[in-house]
Amino acid sequence: MAKRTERTIAEFSLIRAITRRFRRRARRLIKGIGDDAAVITSPPSVWWHVTTDLLVEGVHFDLKTAAPRTIGYRAAIANLSDIAAMGATPRYLFIALAIPRGFASRSVLSLYDGLMEACRSHHVALLGGDTSASGAGLFISITLIGTSAAGHALFRHGAAVGDHIYVTGTVGDSLAGLQLLNEHRSSRPASRRRRFLPAKDRKFLIERHLRPSARLKEGQWLNQKSLATAAIDLSDGLSGDLRHICEESGVGAEIDGDALPISVACRAYAATCETSPVDLALQGGEDYELLFTAPPSLQATIERQARRRGFQITRIGVIKPRRFGIQITRADGTLRPMPVTSYEHRFS
Amino acid sequence: MAKRTERTIAEFSLIRAITRRFRRRARRLIKGIGDDAAVITSPPSVWWHVTTDLLVEGVHFDLKTAAPRTIGYRAAIANLSDIAAMGATPRYLFIALAIPRGFASRSVLSLYDGLMEACRSHHVALLGGDTSASGAGLFISITLIGTSAAGHALFRHGAAVGDHIYVTGTVGDSLAGLQLLNEHRSSRPASRRRRFLPAKDRKFLIERHLRPSARLKEGQWLNQKSLATAAIDLSDGLSGDLRHICEESGVGAEIDGDALPISVACRAYAATCETSPVDLALQGGEDYELLFTAPPSLQATIERQARRRGFQITRIGVIKPRRFGIQITRADGTLRPMPVTSYEHRFS
Repeated sequence: MAKRTERTIAEFSLIRAITRRFRRRARRLIKGIGDDAAVITSPPSVWWHVTTDLLVEGVHFDLKTAAPRTIGYRAAIANLSDIAAMGATPRYLFIALAIPRGFASRSVLSLYDGLMEACRSHHVALLGGDTSASGAGLFISITLIGTSAAGHALFRHGAAVGDHIYVTGTVGDSLAGLQLLNEHRSSRPASRRRRFLPAKDRKFLIERHLRPSARLKEGQWLNQKSLATAAIDLSDGLSGDLRHICEESGVGAEIDGDALPISVACRAYAATCETSPVDLALQGGEDYELLFTAPPSLQATIERQARRRGFQITRIGVIKPRRFGIQITRADGTLRPMPVTSYEHRFS
Repeated sequence: MAKRTERTIAEFSLIRAITRRFRRRARRLIKGIGDDAAVITSPPSVWWHVTTDLLVEGVHFDLKTAAPRTIGYRAAIANLSDIAAMGATPRYLFIALAIPRGFASRSVLSLYDGLMEACRSHHVALLGGDTSASGAGLFISITLIGTSAAGHALFRHGAAVGDHIYVTGTVGDSLAGLQLLNEHRSSRPASRRRRFLPAKDRKFLIERHLRPSARLKEGQWLNQKSLATAAIDLSDGLSGDLRHICEESGVGAEIDGDALPISVACRAYAATCETSPVDLALQGGEDYELLFTAPPSLQATIERQARRRGFQITRIGVIKPRRFGIQITRADGTLRPMPVTSYEHRFS
């Protein structure tokens, strides 16, 4: 136990600076930052969705290679994506931050700037949190609260045998982007073959890694129209996250490897390093796309509505009985068990 | 980025073990642990109270000297106390945990045992969170959600000039207990004078430090009966927390040093080390008592109702205009500015 130090006083100043910078009116807010708890009114007939994510330096990000603003942005997206996967609307944000010595106040503000930038277009309000010194390492814990109409949510447990499996956007880009960043940062010179990746593809993949989107509109559409039987966001990678749906729903799945939506850039990248783009798509985490299941009877409706709304969705497989396990058809036409490899969360 | 390791697999097993151990039915719960977010229904006409606390190894606790169960217990009380200070009822708990190498699964479960032990009598349900490896140090981030009737909450900003200032229980015990623990653990032999502290006083003070209570019933009483104009819990110490009330309410305060409720044990301890018990009471953090203000017209009602309910409350001062600042009358009858010293959160 130590007497209140200059650091503590600096901490209070920092909290005040953050409060000033991000204070804004929020719907149904009674009290934001500055009391023992934030107080919010609840409209009748809503469900509340609460998600908590922890991001640890050296595990989920590396301060040597990632800008604080990017870390903040991606931390917010990880949580927004969880709310998207529930089909809910994100509302209120709480941030707990342990700050190591040497991490400047300027960097803390940049981190918050990134967090709030990701939240701004969704009208999410920062309502509180906690700040502490850290003996070692930066720790960010985020709690995000969202709402949906009562009775409407996308769970992991509703997939039924025969349901189609869909994914939004493209998969594998984030992992390709991360590998490009790591290669760029490593002291080894890039091998010759890498030169054949066009600059625009490289840029696209790195951007997809550093500035992913949360598929909130897609999730809300699926939820509000009751189109999906189950949903999850792709944070661990398609193979790992599909497994979560199968476990919670008590089913198996067959994925068509040829059907996976893989971007031109990701295919080009895979070619330059003689990797299978399907492997990148299956193993790559942090695409933050939505994986969802829906009854075959809704196929035409789903595809028509998605087209009309400008949502990119791709049908990639079908739900099977549990005993089938999780299998994937590869380019050679063979059906094989889906590899269990997925990647740990870690961005740079 | 690393392939999924044994640690990650162990992490999933750990989460499953925790889920099994603490899974129970909660009111208004649609989905607990095991989806992208927890989902809760909201009754009409309630206010939601959300508080987040971060506890960092080496800052708030020391794993060398504190048992994981005690750390968990105290972490829960810190959050329950915030909800108590709002006059709300605690409901749902979310825990983010970064676990360093060498912190055994057994210890993680003990930590959760302590957390849930503190919550059990209040029927708080563990609904989710996140677990990660930590490169260095144990980090615990807790989000606790409570509810109150709409329109009813105890804020920091309502104190008015002339209001009486009250505190629940006794103050200074936790700091005295911490000093006793630290002395016991230090390699230096206890000085002779310490021998005069009776064992029962020593035990009482250490217990008050290791096993504090959150004054939930007192807070709910004050809130439901609309008796208090402002309230805060004593986590930083009476002098620091009174300052928060004064700042948020735009007022000053006069405290009667002689009136502070100081336990017999705390006075005995202060005598053995020639410290002023009033200083212990003002500076000591983590008593988790409630400090509140109320109009003089309610004095008789408050004191009668408290007596009937078995709540210990003590009137310790009066709210003054802002220009008065915060002053305290000492034993010699002089009025002096309240020392600004308070202690950082840190328990051992």
